[in-house]
Amino acid sequence: MIIIVKQNTPKEKVGELLHSLEEQNFKTHLSEGENTTIIGLVGDTSIVDIDSLKARDIVEDVRRVSEPYKKANRKFHADDTVVDVLGQKIGGGHFAVMAGPCSVESESQILEIAKNIMQSGANFLRGGAFKPRTSPYAFQGLEGSGIDLLLKCKKKYGIPIVTEIMGISDIPLFEDVDIIQVGARNMQNFRLLKELGHLKQPILLKRGLANTIEELLMSAEYIMSGGNENVILCERGIRTFETYTRNTFDLSAIPMIKRLSHLPVIADPSHAAGLDWLVEPLAKAAVAAGADGLMIEVHNDPSHALSDGKQSLTPSRFTEVMEVLKNYIKLEKKVIG
Amino acid sequence: MIIIVKQNTPKEKVGELLHSLEEQNFKTHLSEGENTTIIGLVGDTSIVDIDSLKARDIVEDVRRVSEPYKKANRKFHADDTVVDVLGQKIGGGHFAVMAGPCSVESESQILEIAKNIMQSGANFLRGGAFKPRTSPYAFQGLEGSGIDLLLKCKKKYGIPIVTEIMGISDIPLFEDVDIIQVGARNMQNFRLLKELGHLKQPILLKRGLANTIEELLMSAEYIMSGGNENVILCERGIRTFETYTRNTFDLSAIPMIKRLSHLPVIADPSHAAGLDWLVEPLAKAAVAAGADGLMIEVHNDPSHALSDGKQSLTPSRFTEVMEVLKNYIKLEKKVIG
Amino acid sequence: MIIIVKQNTPKEKVGELLHSLEEQNFKTHLSEGENTTIIGLVGDTSIVDIDSLKARDIVEDVRRVSEPYKKANRKFHADDTVVDVLGQKIGGGHFAVMAGPCSVESESQILEIAKNIMQSGANFLRGGAFKPRTSPYAFQGLEGSGIDLLLKCKKKYGIPIVTEIMGISDIPLFEDVDIIQVGARNMQNFRLLKELGHLKQPILLKRGLANTIEELLMSAEYIMSGGNENVILCERGIRTFETYTRNTFDLSAIPMIKRLSHLPVIADPSHAAGLDWLVEPLAKAAVAAGADGLMIEVHNDPSHALSDGKQSLTPSRFTEVMEVLKNYIKLEKKVIG
Amino acid sequence: MIIIVKQNTPKEKVGELLHSLEEQNFKTHLSEGENTTIIGLVGDTSIVDIDSLKARDIVEDVRRVSEPYKKANRKFHADDTVVDVLGQKIGGGHFAVMAGPCSVESESQILEIAKNIMQSGANFLRGGAFKPRTSPYAFQGLEGSGIDLLLKCKKKYGIPIVTEIMGISDIPLFEDVDIIQVGARNMQNFRLLKELGHLKQPILLKRGLANTIEELLMSAEYIMSGGNENVILCERGIRTFETYTRNTFDLSAIPMIKRLSHLPVIADPSHAAGLDWLVEPLAKAAVAAGADGLMIEVHNDPSHALSDGKQSLTPSRFTEVMEVLKNYIKLEKKVIG
Repeated sequence: MIIIVKQNTPKEKVGELLHSLEEQNFKTHLSEGENTTIIGLVGDTSIVDIDSLKARDIVEDVRRVSEPYKKANRKFHADDTVVDVLGQKIGGGHFAVMAGPCSVESESQILEIAKNIMQSGANFLRGGAFKPRTSPYAFQGLEGSGIDLLLKCKKKYGIPIVTEIMGISDIPLFEDVDIIQVGARNMQNFRLLKELGHLKQPILLKRGLANTIEELLMSAEYIMSGGNENVILCERGIRTFETYTRNTFDLSAIPMIKRLSHLPVIADPSHAAGLDWLVEPLAKAAVAAGADGLMIEVHNDPSHALSDGKQSLTPSRFTEVMEVLKNYIKLEKKVIG
Repeated sequence: MIIIVKQNTPKEKVGELLHSLEEQNFKTHLSEGENTTIIGLVGDTSIVDIDSLKARDIVEDVRRVSEPYKKANRKFHADDTVVDVLGQKIGGGHFAVMAGPCSVESESQILEIAKNIMQSGANFLRGGAFKPRTSPYAFQGLEGSGIDLLLKCKKKYGIPIVTEIMGISDIPLFEDVDIIQVGARNMQNFRLLKELGHLKQPILLKRGLANTIEELLMSAEYIMSGGNENVILCERGIRTFETYTRNTFDLSAIPMIKRLSHLPVIADPSHAAGLDWLVEPLAKAAVAAGADGLMIEVHNDPSHALSDGKQSLTPSRFTEVMEVLKNYIKLEKKVIG
Repeated sequence: MIIIVKQNTPKEKVGELLHSLEEQNFKTHLSEGENTTIIGLVGDTSIVDIDSLKARDIVEDVRRVSEPYKKANRKFHADDTVVDVLGQKIGGGHFAVMAGPCSVESESQILEIAKNIMQSGANFLRGGAFKPRTSPYAFQGLEGSGIDLLLKCKKKYGIPIVTEIMGISDIPLFEDVDIIQVGARNMQNFRLLKELGHLKQPILLKRGLANTIEELLMSAEYIMSGGNENVILCERGIRTFETYTRNTFDLSAIPMIKRLSHLPVIADPSHAAGLDWLVEPLAKAAVAAGADGLMIEVHNDPSHALSDGKQSLTPSRFTEVMEVLKNYIKLEKKVIG
Repeated sequence: MIIIVKQNTPKEKVGELLHSLEEQNFKTHLSEGENTTIIGLVGDTSIVDIDSLKARDIVEDVRRVSEPYKKANRKFHADDTVVDVLGQKIGGGHFAVMAGPCSVESESQILEIAKNIMQSGANFLRGGAFKPRTSPYAFQGLEGSGIDLLLKCKKKYGIPIVTEIMGISDIPLFEDVDIIQVGARNMQNFRLLKELGHLKQPILLKRGLANTIEELLMSAEYIMSGGNENVILCERGIRTFETYTRNTFDLSAIPMIKRLSHLPVIADPSHAAGLDWLVEPLAKAAVAAGADGLMIEVHNDPSHALSDGKQSLTPSRFTEVMEVLKNYIKLEKKVIG
């Protein structure tokens, strides 16, 4: 960590700051230039409150040199984390294909889709029971009974299920859910993250629309510091000025996170693009960029979906896309499952 | 609402769509051009699920013409909403000055600040008890006991208090809090918004870092549709590529929201700028742009604040800023309180 | 094009507007709703000045339904444009690999790099002679003599060359340059674009840091409307809040542009990422997303490059990357050259 | 400047880097921590090519501590620059009001507007002769004859004129123009900036849509390093995800630039907002935030303007706005002219 001292600060003031830092067990190094005095701070700076330090009256600025996350940091955990869910693995060469409808709508719908996506090669069933919607007047999901329908699919077909949680009070409903998803809007719902840190199920953490990669890793750190180290990260597009796509898919985030962290990273091309025909090229690109999995919306009747139909594939289109994707997954020397 | 039909769609397909829309009690108007066919949709389109409509196979795109919010919409509520809290009013010519520390740290700290800011002309005490922090290792606030300390100030000085809520389970602790704040990161925590819609206290809703003005109004709609129509909106900066300021203060949002909605709008120049010396010019500008109030961080010892000290004013600096601001408030023909 | 009329506009005012539009040979369709009146405008709306229309006192808003570009539009030119440069083709299944240093620095440097990249499979030599630099104190390129060195490579090895132009007055120096590049900062230097529209050489047009896909296509339209229809578009990253990467590579732009336009699209992963180790995953992803080519920075001694060394590959690393890329290009059923 | 050395770099490699930096007359300070080694670099680092340094194989990252601009830097030029144009001053307490149409359209139009805006208190006439338009099919301005019409106004009324230049070859036409404007799209047209550095007229430099404050100051540095130190900066909105306004007016840029630089800063609320009714609140806010002037679009018949009518004020509306603004200018202890 580097502390830049304000110009013309009296020497004794700098001395006081050095002293107070050393009392906190940091080693300090002083560089005095003609215009600028810099203090290098060495030790475990992840616990330093950078804001407090910045507020010192003699401090011009403070910059981190090392990352503020520890448990999620590859520097302290060189090997890929491999998440294992009912025998289906994610990370470390294992590729996950999570497919299903944006919203669970009915028993026949979700059973049919589950069967179809499994036949095409997907190994996780995704489906929304609790839906975060911008408008209070829009369909909010089947809630608890939506989870029951997903569990029926799990029981019938043995496929692990992934579904989104929106609040702490719903945790009991998620007892048999295999992967609990935290949506983009809740990426910094710290109260929820802390609670999920006490659970045993893997957490699928989606990147917020305006959140940096560092903030995503810090949110993973919230969950991991509670004891739950099975976190799967998901890039699903960030918000920019471009309007032709729903969001801007930040593909670079995939290899960047893989380098910074040992956690598996998947991509959600359906939400990133917001358009069905963009799913295939984005999915291929995500595989090529090193993703450990994909989350793809599939709906038996996109035209009549209760949410996000525009970005959903039909089961037959999903089958075609999977056939193409398998070549790319193979080229990356990964295996589904 | 306008529906743009895909090129070369057979007439009967268009007919089917028109028919299904009319069954939902919308009036439709068809414009057939050489390259483009457009359907105009008339009626209460705020309940239309735009995503479902977009997903129809013959639909190229759908665009809203009227706003998707109703209760927050000035079109249906021409007069300014005036929020009254213990006799202190916000909106309709009444200006609110909310001041206090980022975090409540101790009884002596908060009592001293409360006294100081009241003497300078502030009429609300703000202070964080539950603090949303990017890092799990940073100070998280005094939580329940922080609220107790704020209530002591309220009891001693009669000043109404404003503090942030982070989760539904904390609602009982907020029973005597005068204004409940929803922070930027929770602007789309819809579960929380719905619960707050059942309370009687005014809600101070901060704009999210990557949220549009329309989304802010939709989140207000969540609260209002639950029955709580006392919502105060707050502009506190959005996230852009600029790095010299912590966030980019979207000043235009203030007059824009005032035009679109009857709800009061305040500005938080401390968080928008992230730098103490920027608070005065931004606060003056917010008043000049029509804000109904300000939220300003004041700390008795910014250099040793447990959070956000860099952007806090000392009480004496706050007094100076208030003297300047009073001229601008007067010029806008508004009164504090 | 759709014109939304302000609420409570008198009928005769709407009639006047309709009349004036019809006089300009547009067909109009009127949809009158309870709250909203909409005029559908049919005909060649690419010539309509949307700003003038918006400024009419009875007009609330104007929205385009069809694209404002014509010559670049795939709707009017279904087949892929294939650009042919000295027998090397770009587009329509032909893949271009443009490699070379950010800046041409010396004869030995550029000759060595040219030889190396050709051996690895590149079919275009790129190198900067005129360098747009943020700082007036930074190295500005060898200018005219840099172009001479590129031409020596072309003469010696027969490889076509690509280099950036910064001003109209330099056009004579570019007479023997095979592809003239317009950099991101000049994407809306309309005077330059117009002049390039009168040349015969293909133009490589890079997307500006804050420009939409639509604006990129409009800038292509500037060149094409002057008579030069050989435009190659290039995605090289846009500016967002994310700081871990130099820019945010907007991968979706590649398939989006391919769908909207018949022009070839290439990607520049070196500038998008700003980091050498990110070039390979981004390049693979670009191929997988449908790019017609790549522009990659290669430098014989990145540590001592006069510009952008951090993002340059060494020739041996480039060889490795090319070996990997060839598998992806093959999977996409494309051929280099 | 701070150089962060990669982990596990051999000591002799660090020694070589130190040696090479010292040879360039920098003083260096080494801080060796357990995980991180930092080199502090002291001296005139504005000439350091940060990219070359970053590309060294042992360098992890490089961060500037001091600003890369010198001539524009307030640290080396404490007093406000006051630009004097025909006796009208800008900066140092002198406020400029530049008003006029987006485009010069005819002699009668521009003469009438000039007379009107002067009566309302404006002291500069602005008007576009060369217009940068996104579409090649839109009105491109009267060009040379537009400048002639502005000069007629100047001759008749004695008012100094401001108009935009789009290319180097047009410089001769600008000989009698009082302030030469560089538009947002040309902010990094470095060839143009360099040429303008050799002129005597003040340059009004507008911030680019995606350019940082630092880049704006670096572009000013381009002009100033050529010898022309009369640069006026202009905030006119940046590009963000918000769509209700044309651009996002970055108000904070005004006080930020005033602190970093001695150059005068004006605001253009017309372009920032894109909506006529937003001009007044944004203009008031800009004054309150410390702007040294305003540029406001005024058109005698906005409904029939050839460009940007939606954001233009009528002369009578401008008069009203000026009456309001004068109170704010007075409160800031500034005078027009």
